[in-house]
Formats: sequence, C-alpha cells, structure tokens
Amino acid sequence: MRAVDLIMKKRDGGELSREEIAFLVSGYVDGSLPEYQVSAWLMSVFFRGMNPRETADLTELMLRSGDVMDLSGIPGPFVDKHSTGGVGDKVSLILAPIAAACGVKVPMMSGRALGHTGGTLDKLESIPGYRTNLSPAEFRDFLRADGYAMTGQTARVVPADKKLYALRDVTATVESVPLITASILSKKVAEGAESLVFDVKCGPGAFMKTFPDARRLAESLVDTGKAMGKRIVGVITDMTEPLGLKVGNFLEVEESLDCLTGKGPADLMEVTYRLAAWMLVAAGKAKGVEEALRLCEAAVAEGRAMELFRRNVRTQGGDLAKMDALYGKLRSPHSFELRAPASGFVTAIDAYRIGLAGVYLGVGRNTTADPVYPDVGFVFERKVGDSVTAGDLVARVYGKDEASLAAARPLVEEALTVGPAAPAPRKLVLEELAAL
Amino acid sequence: MRAVDLIMKKRDGGELSREEIAFLVSGYVDGSLPEYQVSAWLMSVFFRGMNPRETADLTELMLRSGDVMDLSGIPGPFVDKHSTGGVGDKVSLILAPIAAACGVKVPMMSGRALGHTGGTLDKLESIPGYRTNLSPAEFRDFLRADGYAMTGQTARVVPADKKLYALRDVTATVESVPLITASILSKKVAEGAESLVFDVKCGPGAFMKTFPDARRLAESLVDTGKAMGKRIVGVITDMTEPLGLKVGNFLEVEESLDCLTGKGPADLMEVTYRLAAWMLVAAGKAKGVEEALRLCEAAVAEGRAMELFRRNVRTQGGDLAKMDALYGKLRSPHSFELRAPASGFVTAIDAYRIGLAGVYLGVGRNTTADPVYPDVGFVFERKVGDSVTAGDLVARVYGKDEASLAAARPLVEEALTVGPAAPAPRKLVLEELAAL
Repeated sequence: MRAVDLIMKKRDGGELSREEIAFLVSGYVDGSLPEYQVSAWLMSVFFRGMNPRETADLTELMLRSGDVMDLSGIPGPFVDKHSTGGVGDKVSLILAPIAAACGVKVPMMSGRALGHTGGTLDKLESIPGYRTNLSPAEFRDFLRADGYAMTGQTARVVPADKKLYALRDVTATVESVPLITASILSKKVAEGAESLVFDVKCGPGAFMKTFPDARRLAESLVDTGKAMGKRIVGVITDMTEPLGLKVGNFLEVEESLDCLTGKGPADLMEVTYRLAAWMLVAAGKAKGVEEALRLCEAAVAEGRAMELFRRNVRTQGGDLAKMDALYGKLRSPHSFELRAPASGFVTAIDAYRIGLAGVYLGVGRNTTADPVYPDVGFVFERKVGDSVTAGDLVARVYGKDEASLAAARPLVEEALTVGPAAPAPRKLVLEELAAL
Repeated sequence: MRAVDLIMKKRDGGELSREEIAFLVSGYVDGSLPEYQVSAWLMSVFFRGMNPRETADLTELMLRSGDVMDLSGIPGPFVDKHSTGGVGDKVSLILAPIAAACGVKVPMMSGRALGHTGGTLDKLESIPGYRTNLSPAEFRDFLRADGYAMTGQTARVVPADKKLYALRDVTATVESVPLITASILSKKVAEGAESLVFDVKCGPGAFMKTFPDARRLAESLVDTGKAMGKRIVGVITDMTEPLGLKVGNFLEVEESLDCLTGKGPADLMEVTYRLAAWMLVAAGKAKGVEEALRLCEAAVAEGRAMELFRRNVRTQGGDLAKMDALYGKLRSPHSFELRAPASGFVTAIDAYRIGLAGVYLGVGRNTTADPVYPDVGFVFERKVGDSVTAGDLVARVYGKDEASLAAARPLVEEALTVGPAAPAPRKLVLEELAAL
C-alpha cells in the first residue's frame, strides 16, 4: 500500500477502506508516514469529505491509538454530554448532577478554555481545592460513589487526535466535518459512555457560525456514532448571546448553584433541562423527552441534584465552606460598568465579542500556557429582549487588572446593541436529531 | 505572514498575491517552511486552481530560484518548442534545424525518457559521440554558430521546480494545471527564449488523456506566458497512435534523417511543419502560418535543414560517419514480428501500450537511474487506417534481450486492433491558441 495512492483516491472522491485509513492513521502515529503526505490527505478530506463508514473507522482507529476507560464492574447506564463550546456555557456543571440524580452514570471528561470559549475544568478549579486531574482509579471510584465524576483528558487518551489536531491546526484543515467528528467522538467514546448527547452550538459565539454548518456536524456526529453502535443524540442550540447571566470561572460556579436551587435564568435552564432529558431518554430511563424533563425538574426541585453537586465537590477535594463563603463575593477589584447607550430594547449581546473580551479579562486564554483567574468575568443585569433606559446598568465587568479592562472595553461596548424595537424572540433549541 | 493563513485563503478560493506566493516558494526552497504546509497548499491549489496572474507569479518566482541562460550578444530572435511528451515524438530533432534554417535561433533544453514517453536527450545520445551535457558557454557558442543547440537542464536551472515536483509526486498533486504550467514554463523561460510554441499532446499516449484537459493546459500555458510578456502558441496535437513509423532511440534518429531528406511519414511531417511554422510566426519571420509552412518546406526541400542537422551533430561531438554507417543496421538481435491477427483495417495502435512496452524493451525507463539502449524499439510497416491481410507484418519489435521481448509482447499485441471497417480519419492538429 502506498500513501500517494490513498491520497489520490480520496482526492478524486473515492471511499477509503478501513485498512487504508488504518495505514494512514497508524503510519502517522508511529512516524513511518511523512507529515507532508498526511497533510495532503487531510486537505483532500477537507474537499471531498468522508462518509459515515469512513468517519466511524477513522474514529475507532484514533480511539484505539490510546487508553480507553474501563468501567467494567460499575453499574450503568453510562451517558455523557459534549458541547462544541460557547460563552457562559456552564451546562455541564448543572446537568451532570441532574442526570446522576435521575439514575444514570456520567463519566465526564472535559476541556479547558481556549480562544473565546470557556472550559469546564477551569470553572471547576475555581472552587478552592477542587481537583480535575483524577487518576483512572479515582475516576472510576468517584463515578461509582457519586453517580458522576469530572476529569480532564490524560495524554494517553486518543494521542492520535492530539497529533492530528496539531497538524490540522497549521495546515488549514481544522474545519472539516468528518475530521471534527472523529476528533470529538473518539475522545467521548474513550470515556466509556454508551450513550452520548451532543450540544452543537450554533451562532456567532460558537465554532459553527451558521445553522447549515451546525446541522452538518450534528448529523455527522449522530450518523458516525450510530455506525459505531452508540446511542446518539445531537441537539443544536443557539449561541448568539452568552448563556445565562454570568460569564467567568467562579461566576459560572455561582450560577450553577443558582440553577440547582431552582433560581437559574430561563435560557440556561431550558438548554440544561433539554440536554439532561435527552441523556435520560438515550439511557432508557424515560420513554420520551417530556417524561424525562419532569424527572429532571423533580431532581432539582427535591434538592437531589444539589446534594450530588456538593457531594462531588467534596469528593474531588473542593472546600464547600470556602465555596459558600465566596459566593457573591469573589470579585476582582478591577471592574467597570457597561451601561445602556440609549433607551429602547437590548437587541444583541454578541457572544463572540464577549468571549474575546473574556480572554483579555482573564476568563479564558489564547494559548494553553496562559493562566486563568477565578474572580473575573461578566455579571449581566439585562439580556437580549429586555427594555432599558439610557444609562441603565447592563453588566458589571471584572478584569485581572486595569490594562485588561482597557483592552476588553471596546469589545464589550461593541457587543451590546440597543434598538428602538423589541427583537423577535429567539429559539434556543433549534433542532434535535436522535439515533437511539 | 503565516503559511496557515495563506493555505486557508487558497483553500477557500481566494487569490494569493505575488508576495504571498513568494513567501511560500522561497520558504520552501530555503527550508524555512515545513513540507507539510507546502503539501497542504499544493493540494488546495489542486482543488481551487490559480488564475493567470498567480500562475505567472509562481512561474517567475520558480524561475528566479536558479540560473537563467544569458543569451545577450547573440542575435535572435530566440524561439523554442516544448512537447508535453508522447510516443515516437522525435519532432524536436527535425524541427530545430528547420526553424534554424529559416533564420531563428533555437536554444533547446530537453529531457530524458521517463515512463511511457521518450526523451530527446536519449535519442540524440544514440548517435555515437553526441554530447548533451553542454556547459553554458558551449551552449551559447553552438547556438550562435549553428542556429540551434541541444542540451539537458543542469541542476541549477529552476531548482524550485525539482524540489516542488518531488513533493508533488508523493502527495498526489502532480495533476494540477497551474502547477504543471509553472513547472513547464519556468524551465522554458530559463532557456532565454522570447517566443515559445507548446505542443500539448492529447490522447491515450499523452499526459493529458482528454481534449478538455489538454485544452485547459494549452490555455493556461498561453495565458500565463502572455502574462509574463512572452509570445506564446499552444498547439494541441493527437497522441492516439505513435507519431511516425519508428519508435526507439537511434530508430528515431533514423526517422529524423528520413524527414530531413523529404521522405518522412505524413503524420510526423504534418505535426513537425505545423509546429515549426508557428515558431516562425511567433518570431516574426512570417506573417502567417501558411507563409511559414512554405518557408519550412523549402528549408527541407533545399537541404538547408539537413545541413544544419549534420553540422549540429558534428558540433556536439557526434560521429557523422558512424551515424550514417549505422543507419538501417543498428538493430538488436532480439526481435519479434507483430503480425495482423485478422484481415481488415488497422483501427488502433495504442500509443500508451507501445510506450509501456518500450520501457521493457529498453527504449525508455521507469526510474531516472535505468539505462536505455540505442538499438531497440519498433519499426512499423502499417499505421492506423491501413488495410491488412491476416498474417501481414505490422511491426518489427526489437528488445535488449529475450526476457524484455517476452514482457513486452502481450502489451504490443493488445496495442494493435484490426477491424472490418476503415476508421474515420483522425485529425492530427486539434486546436491552435496563440498570444502574439
């Protein structure tokens, strides 16, 4: 088998066999194939795509390049949720204890903030003492005991993805639906989940800016997961304005606590409940989404979800007393107020600009080596659709220092649009695709 | 400037500036850009193409990566012909002295046989003593003295092309019209010619198998050459059956001598005269092709072209007495006869299969290190359209040894088709494009 023939086959629109994909992936991982052939293949995949069979084979071969979590001996069902990333997206923190309270196990491996999108691990680590670098044994033990566990990915999970992503990043081959699918799915399947719910964010604050792009990715995730024998749901949700009222690290922990006490903002609760409900349906814990929604609401109303959240914080080393004491108080002294420039209605709070401003403030990072801060971010007093009078407070903005505020301010001001008329209400859940 | 942004721009259908192309080409040649970015860019060019301005910039930048022939002090006009390669294509050997006899200078740099196509240098070197590795000083002196000179390309001519071609060869990015254009044109312009005639061969025995592909390349060569300020003609000619009656190395020298004495086969003479005539038109030596054709025919009829051919052989070290003595006699003792399998008409002699069989026989080579032989090849007694009786001799086939004959025989037999009806006459010159 020669790599050049496989590149040519894909370049000319052909379908590669499992053996041919294996030749490329293993050759790349073991270093026997030169990177210039791999990048030419990746670019031909960018233009020609891959069908669900090819994508499933690529996903499985990537998955097998590293460690796969062994959950044997722990009673399931195992189900996880993955978001393609957004601004103010603290859904994982709220949804995991809700789903666990409804009787499913949630083995969740999350990522860190990068670019304009936040990271679940960074948010959790803003709780004093909270550890996200669990060993596989800890992860299994905590999952068994609490119903869910939150960890980062070790270097040994899907090393092929890390290597391929590094090459894609410098060869303009990131934006390929099958390659994105294999990257996301291989890591999620490596966790050991049998059912997966994907929150494909759509809009200016998301990786997929348009609905057709988001739909293509959701469909690819569902079709490929199905081809791998998993139960898969893809939910396309809006990422036009930040989700909820708080954007930051500890600020989002605070809002998660609000949600678990039943006082969460409507948009955040709608998305969280919907995704959690699909987890229950996928895991066979409810016959339909409506039944599942009632189960999720009950888990919050009866305090069972909050109980699991607090138990998880304690289990993973977090200091509950300190967390409670910091609630509402952990705020950087460097702040400014964003006020309405005119009277009327808030017609836009651009999630992308808020996310980018967050990088300056210290919420997120540009490179994986940058530090993030717990006490910075945004507290919104108004959301899109709210009426305002000129001068009204729209948001308090906290930064790591004065320079960060100065850098963020133009972006934050640009993010806010006030108009004379109320905008049409925005749908939050745009489409749901399920292969169960 | 970042390579990844340039790859992305081309990937998304954008036009690269001269500075951006220079960044990629010079970065590749000097080793500062990694090959995996260059191959991803090449694949994006494969899919998105380049416009004439981009192709001209790429050609010029490649050209400047190495030595350019300095023809100053020699009276012009300088005009050359380039063929994309065929089987039995000895046109250069005949056309150069014809054009020179009509008052133009032909500074011709040629290539060697590779794959199924023959090489002008290999044919010339089958003349005892003939040297094709001229120094630049010799090339200039011979060109001035004889009106034409024949040499190979040194490693210092367009090194960027050699390096890029090696990468394209292993990344399935050879078949890109703008990249082929830049590769061909940069080497031809480096010779110092002001006018260029391209013989774009079309058919099973050519690099471009179909007319639309050949037309795209011809058009690209003409448009790009024009953008570089050159006078360019593209002539698309048929390469369905081998050109002429003899295919080999010394066998093609023999046929060239036949042509220069006015006894050449009709198909070969038609193509040769047409291309030579366009050289005269491009160089301003004739007002139109018809006038130029009469000048070329006169150069042959009056023996002036033959005189220049013999002078060039002597100048470049060839032994005329030996050449003449070998005429009709330099034949390998290993041969077989291809005979008509049925009565009727020859409907096809597949140039591609004849070319591939020639590699076994020792006419051509699979890799640049393989030796070629002077005394092997094909002497056809029949061409497409001729009537035959079952058992008639169609060709004598000479190989370097008995094993080579055994390997070539099935291909040679498959190449010949005899049918009950005469095939429709085939046009040899399919289209002519000129930018003068």
